[in-house]
Amino acid sequence: MNLILLADADFVGADRVRLRGRQKIHVETVHRARAGDDLRVGLLNGKIGTGKVVKLDDRELVLDVVLDQDPPPPLSLTLLLALPRPKMLKRVLQAVSSMGVKNIYLINSYRVDKSFWGSPLLQRDNLEEQLRLGLEQARDTILPHIHLRKRFKPFVEDELPRISAGTRALVAHPGATHACPTDAGRAITLAVGPEGGFIPYEVEKLSEGGFVPVSLGTRILRVETAVPALLSKLTPLE
Amino acid sequence: MNLILLADADFVGADRVRLRGRQKIHVETVHRARAGDDLRVGLLNGKIGTGKVVKLDDRELVLDVVLDQDPPPPLSLTLLLALPRPKMLKRVLQAVSSMGVKNIYLINSYRVDKSFWGSPLLQRDNLEEQLRLGLEQARDTILPHIHLRKRFKPFVEDELPRISAGTRALVAHPGATHACPTDAGRAITLAVGPEGGFIPYEVEKLSEGGFVPVSLGTRILRVETAVPALLSKLTPLE
Repeated sequence: MNLILLADADFVGADRVRLRGRQKIHVETVHRARAGDDLRVGLLNGKIGTGKVVKLDDRELVLDVVLDQDPPPPLSLTLLLALPRPKMLKRVLQAVSSMGVKNIYLINSYRVDKSFWGSPLLQRDNLEEQLRLGLEQARDTILPHIHLRKRFKPFVEDELPRISAGTRALVAHPGATHACPTDAGRAITLAVGPEGGFIPYEVEKLSEGGFVPVSLGTRILRVETAVPALLSKLTPLE
Repeated sequence: MNLILLADADFVGADRVRLRGRQKIHVETVHRARAGDDLRVGLLNGKIGTGKVVKLDDRELVLDVVLDQDPPPPLSLTLLLALPRPKMLKRVLQAVSSMGVKNIYLINSYRVDKSFWGSPLLQRDNLEEQLRLGLEQARDTILPHIHLRKRFKPFVEDELPRISAGTRALVAHPGATHACPTDAGRAITLAVGPEGGFIPYEVEKLSEGGFVPVSLGTRILRVETAVPALLSKLTPLE
């Protein structure tokens, strides 16, 4: 946790916050902060700055905060991700949130196990918890938007054209003849398949929608490895 | 497992192998292979090719193999990694092995928790198991070399100059003024610090050895996210 992400509800005064949960314990046991120490803080969907420890005891952490800086710039990339198994989804959400992705569509694909859609992790609060962990890691405050789309065809035919309009649209596909471009330079829409990849029908549907299949080479990578590698290849990561 | 990695000991004839452990179960339950099916196989540190299922029953999987293709090219990059916590080390080793890194030095750093050096994961067989999982994922056969270096200063002063000689030497360091270069183009030696980063003394020692600090931007990424992002930024990933 490189930044303490504050919610409006944490404020007990104009510039004073009180924390009692996971964050308070982390500051106590990992940062080992004491009264007078400065910690990096940020307001969810707002500015970042500094919080001076006023009080830290068994009950609560009280900070006086100054929020005067902008969070880091977002990535100009919308991610469509075939729903991974829950354990991997957690890690991927933390990773993409930390890298600055602000729009994530979790989509269906033939090779997505149907049981994944029933995972409690897909509840709004649980998804947002993973995204917040990514923000705290990267010192960001802007919560990504996450959208669940359980039906591939209606999503690709009816909704995706509006999402990808005006962007460079790419589908990561092992074995594609085009190499993944470097610093693709403008807004990007990137589709990443499940373990085992999109099936040919799905690649075809995406291609009809203007998505160009690109590859990271002959090696087949796990989704949690491929996604940071793709984002890093495609964007400047400011 | 996109390739079944064979050992010499698996051979029961010139072109025939017999498998009984984890790999047999995976072929049975995930691939759901039957007699006559072709599976992708490779010989550890050797060629890759095809294995035709001759027999698959409760006891064993028997394959007739043809090994006639080269494994994918290695990455021209030596990785120095401050020893991460065991759980993360597993994932990072699988990831870098799948991406084609063939030389890995696990090194000490001020911010490496001393207890990590006592983890059973650091036993040779356990490290190699993680690396093999990465090879099977990426359809590679060439086992990376892994070296443990528990003392930072003697390693950097006495051994590192020989390792980094003739390469582009970089140390990933959040806040560095140089951006991480794109497709750095020749052999690379890359040092990656622990969570929290190398301390200034360590960056200085590496700089004295010719390592240039580079950054992936203002965001601080977890090691397991930063490493695939760095490898992807620095190399063409053929």
